[in-house]
Amino acid sequence: MTVGIVGAGQLGRMMALAGYPLGLDFLFLDKDAKTPGGQVAPLLAGELTDRKLLGELASRCDVLTFDWENIPVEALEGLPGKARIAPPLRALAAAQDRLAEKRTFELLGIPTTRYASVNSRADLDAAIERIGLPGVLKTRRLGYDGKGQAVLRKPADVAAAWETLGKQPLLYENLVPFQAEVSVIGVRGRDGKVEFYPLNLNVHRAGILRLTRAPYGNSALTRTAQRAARRVMEHFDYVGVLTIEFFVTRGRLIANEMAPRVHNSGHWTIEGAETSQFENHVRAIAGLPLGSTRARGHSAMINLVGELPDRELLLAERGLHWHDYGKTPRPDRKLGHITLNESSARERDKAVIRVLRRVDRATWIAIR
Amino acid sequence: MTVGIVGAGQLGRMMALAGYPLGLDFLFLDKDAKTPGGQVAPLLAGELTDRKLLGELASRCDVLTFDWENIPVEALEGLPGKARIAPPLRALAAAQDRLAEKRTFELLGIPTTRYASVNSRADLDAAIERIGLPGVLKTRRLGYDGKGQAVLRKPADVAAAWETLGKQPLLYENLVPFQAEVSVIGVRGRDGKVEFYPLNLNVHRAGILRLTRAPYGNSALTRTAQRAARRVMEHFDYVGVLTIEFFVTRGRLIANEMAPRVHNSGHWTIEGAETSQFENHVRAIAGLPLGSTRARGHSAMINLVGELPDRELLLAERGLHWHDYGKTPRPDRKLGHITLNESSARERDKAVIRVLRRVDRATWIAIR
Repeated sequence: MTVGIVGAGQLGRMMALAGYPLGLDFLFLDKDAKTPGGQVAPLLAGELTDRKLLGELASRCDVLTFDWENIPVEALEGLPGKARIAPPLRALAAAQDRLAEKRTFELLGIPTTRYASVNSRADLDAAIERIGLPGVLKTRRLGYDGKGQAVLRKPADVAAAWETLGKQPLLYENLVPFQAEVSVIGVRGRDGKVEFYPLNLNVHRAGILRLTRAPYGNSALTRTAQRAARRVMEHFDYVGVLTIEFFVTRGRLIANEMAPRVHNSGHWTIEGAETSQFENHVRAIAGLPLGSTRARGHSAMINLVGELPDRELLLAERGLHWHDYGKTPRPDRKLGHITLNESSARERDKAVIRVLRRVDRATWIAIR
Repeated sequence: MTVGIVGAGQLGRMMALAGYPLGLDFLFLDKDAKTPGGQVAPLLAGELTDRKLLGELASRCDVLTFDWENIPVEALEGLPGKARIAPPLRALAAAQDRLAEKRTFELLGIPTTRYASVNSRADLDAAIERIGLPGVLKTRRLGYDGKGQAVLRKPADVAAAWETLGKQPLLYENLVPFQAEVSVIGVRGRDGKVEFYPLNLNVHRAGILRLTRAPYGNSALTRTAQRAARRVMEHFDYVGVLTIEFFVTRGRLIANEMAPRVHNSGHWTIEGAETSQFENHVRAIAGLPLGSTRARGHSAMINLVGELPDRELLLAERGLHWHDYGKTPRPDRKLGHITLNESSARERDKAVIRVLRRVDRATWIAIR
């Protein structure tokens, strides 16, 4: 069985590395073979929206998936061949438009931020009037790692934010004063069976995820997050891995956004869970039984952003695992990650402090 | 850094899959891209002894290793370029000749079988006279999975064995009445640091490894095995993973053979140890610090020989991991393996019985 993956970033690369032992073959579509995925599997070179290449990919594969949620849904619709697409395009469509995403959460009774669709300056003023300040103005589409967002704290911030973002459909929402950011990762098989990983506690800095620790949280919080993810997966008759990110505020979960794919906050599962999110995504879309999502000990994932630290120095740390995505360094680019795995949360947190101090001082200062 | 691997079987494939996250590139030499390794990394197609291709491999890589110990040492000597070869060729030479292997064990004070070199029928008669029956007549070179061996139980067996094997250098040794077969896997870094995995308990049938369970044995047995492996590694100024197989007889270890490479009895380390034998081999030869060899829970590895059982059925077993090498089925060919991982030896053994019954009834009957 051949799995086609639209987008050959690090997520696709880790899917392929997890899927080879299952006896699956992989074929990527992305701009060139130097991409992280193109280094470990064959690749069709071209634009992710190239209908001819997408058609070829669909014809040569048994199932298609994607490692980036911003591929226009139209490009993936009505492809030739027998390949199924998973996760389903309806979920992809909802996840790539912040307005559709919020409406999905509302429809399914999942608490989320107060929000308003903004298509004009008048809309924005009305939204601020109704929802208040502080708030966040976001592009409805193509936002990731904090891009396409502006925080509005006072009336004087409005004009500049409108100037920068105002030429496209927007969403305004209240700024949630959160105590923590968490995410839940679930996976649903073709047979409708669902499994969940334990909650992830996430730390962002400048819009980019820096640190995840898992398992996190009490059982009530975990149950609430899993119930939300289950509703979303059942609503879309979902197949594959789904992630929802939440703010924790006064012990309650407020859904922030969802991703119809494996997620950066789940990278620790490669070493830290019985079956990784990548293997389970591939198992699900290939129609295989899901693997156990049980955590093994206590894990942390530290993103390596912008430049890679000294590999040799860090690999000398016991229980440290290194993941280099094979990318060219560039400011704010996710180049790899480190996983730490310990038998207790206390030991894990000590290792996190030790390693963060070396690889990400700003986050080290923020959390210590 | 690019790692060249001579031989693109399943061992090379699992090295590449373990090495990609470390940021390493791989290049194989083997007969074609359909080999297990050729499916996951680029490959030079040709004979393993082709000096021109070996030269190209050496020029394009920073370090060379092999996934098969029967590559003639002469083919690997004096290659152009700057690539180091690891493990060292002296260890390869000793491991691929049963006589040199026995002499190495003797030299290092590692108990082994009584043996004699056999180059003529008169040598064989003298060897039997001195060592006695029952014994095993083996080719000195190119034996694996029980090939090139004959058990001699009574004088009448001698003529037939000589007829079959007598045209090449041979070794005769006493047949050890063993209670168990075990193996130790060690790894030595370029800096001379050494790590060991816990002992493996191995079950062979018809000369082929069928089942490994680990960790096995008491601490005295483990210490003795590790001391032997350490001596061999230090003797050869070894770099990489080394395996020694032993018979356990009346609580003592008798060295049977060594392999200068990752070993089938260590496949459980992918899921069952903090760092797999494949990652540690690659770390060692790339000059990186070794990873922790600590076992996680209790593991078993079941070889899938000759044909693959129903993947979907087996993946429904909790804690079962599937490894398909991408090979064409053929009788007695190792096509893949299954790893089972449980929190206790008792639970692990129950899972072994359940799974063996489905995939290898003959071994199931032998061990239950």
